[in-house]
Amino acid sequence: MRFTTVRTADVTNAARVEGEELVLLPQADVGELLATGDEWKRGPGGADGDRVPLASADFAPLVLNPEKIFCVGLNYADHAAEANLELPEHPTLFAKFARALIGPEDDLRLPDPEITTWVDWELELAVVVGSPIRKASPAEALRGVAGYAIIDDISMRDWQTRTSQYLAGKTFEASTPLGPFLVTPDEFDPTAANSMELTVNGETMQKSSTDQLAIGVAEILSYISEIITLVPGDVIATGTMAGVGHVRTPPVYLKDGDVIEVFSVERVPVMA
Amino acid sequence: MRFTTVRTADVTNAARVEGEELVLLPQADVGELLATGDEWKRGPGGADGDRVPLASADFAPLVLNPEKIFCVGLNYADHAAEANLELPEHPTLFAKFARALIGPEDDLRLPDPEITTWVDWELELAVVVGSPIRKASPAEALRGVAGYAIIDDISMRDWQTRTSQYLAGKTFEASTPLGPFLVTPDEFDPTAANSMELTVNGETMQKSSTDQLAIGVAEILSYISEIITLVPGDVIATGTMAGVGHVRTPPVYLKDGDVIEVFSVERVPVMA
Repeated sequence: MRFTTVRTADVTNAARVEGEELVLLPQADVGELLATGDEWKRGPGGADGDRVPLASADFAPLVLNPEKIFCVGLNYADHAAEANLELPEHPTLFAKFARALIGPEDDLRLPDPEITTWVDWELELAVVVGSPIRKASPAEALRGVAGYAIIDDISMRDWQTRTSQYLAGKTFEASTPLGPFLVTPDEFDPTAANSMELTVNGETMQKSSTDQLAIGVAEILSYISEIITLVPGDVIATGTMAGVGHVRTPPVYLKDGDVIEVFSVERVPVMA
Repeated sequence: MRFTTVRTADVTNAARVEGEELVLLPQADVGELLATGDEWKRGPGGADGDRVPLASADFAPLVLNPEKIFCVGLNYADHAAEANLELPEHPTLFAKFARALIGPEDDLRLPDPEITTWVDWELELAVVVGSPIRKASPAEALRGVAGYAIIDDISMRDWQTRTSQYLAGKTFEASTPLGPFLVTPDEFDPTAANSMELTVNGETMQKSSTDQLAIGVAEILSYISEIITLVPGDVIATGTMAGVGHVRTPPVYLKDGDVIEVFSVERVPVMA
């Protein structure tokens, strides 16, 4: 199954994707849907609301207010190599705050140029938690996954690198597209060769496959679960592949009018 | 004025401190109180509830669920020196998630020894935000401060240092005492020489004064406000002074039965 979060009039709704339609659900977003327990797993049911065309959907961030967003750095060998860094033995974890999220087709508003012009892209596979994960083995941790999504870990490279800690460059307000779709694990295996591609103005900048993750989803979740309880709606961005703009010669950063598109295995644009 | 958050029967309440009494307020915690707008600034009023003795208070985390907890690393010259690091030009920002907080007198449950035994203390001045701060000058940013508190940025040093990013060692579940008191800016000037001292089993481990902060409160808030909007209830831990256990020879870590106490300028124990 696939779920999404859409803006409807002045509110938002979680929705289930059925072919070319969305079935609106009573919850305000996929995060709230997941917090209802296992109801969301059942598919069509009594609380289903109106059907609206998928084509006209106005996508909100897939999860509006996750309790936690964990990001993993340096988790593809090709990206570590382009950054002149080694793949770490343990997941390199940093945070974003929920206020950084935007919808997957929302305009990315560039910061004032005097604040930063070093705005870069990072295509990543996101994991969304469906049930609590605490002190779990990798196999146990996977059972807490609600599904998978796309996140673009937009990074202000000057703010990210001017101290040892990435957070400042990673949690700019309204900078991080998340969504539009949560794809449940019965339809998506992150250890398989699911291709992901990011283009800027039609030019391929990043292209890899989820089976290239150095530390896999199960291991990342298990590791985090030793630190803290992962709860429904939590988002884990699993790291980006080679092709970011910052390490190009010369560096390439996003500018006014640029269009980022992301393609999944089906080459359906899921973010524009 | 001083405010706190206390556990009362099965719920929690914000409370105003009046001498040796607490006046219970209708909000569940100081975070919710601050989100009501300026009402909390007025002092005694119509919605005031029961009075209970301060001496028997069961303190919850001062803010139960801050949207954001920003921490500043390396912000006292003596701590940077003991860590063999230079004072950075910009605030070194990292995050904690709200689930890491505990009450200021709660037991700190040590992790399973096979996970970590490198549990260390970090006494810090915390700033709590009272009204939104966005793209603010240092002087403007100060006007958004609700008040000041004590936080102990408990750190799992092995998890903190095994990758480049501190987060993993900084956001362990139920590890971080916050409170008990929010002291409003009319009673507390962070640029003055307010002494702070942390003892373990009665032995002084950290002692400094808030006027030793390398990057001051106003500048930290202004800097963060360029990144993201600070909102009521947000907590900023401003950095620790020399005397942490990890850099001692040999290193000293917390062990079962240890008691941490923190003394403010008045030498009143505020955390045990």
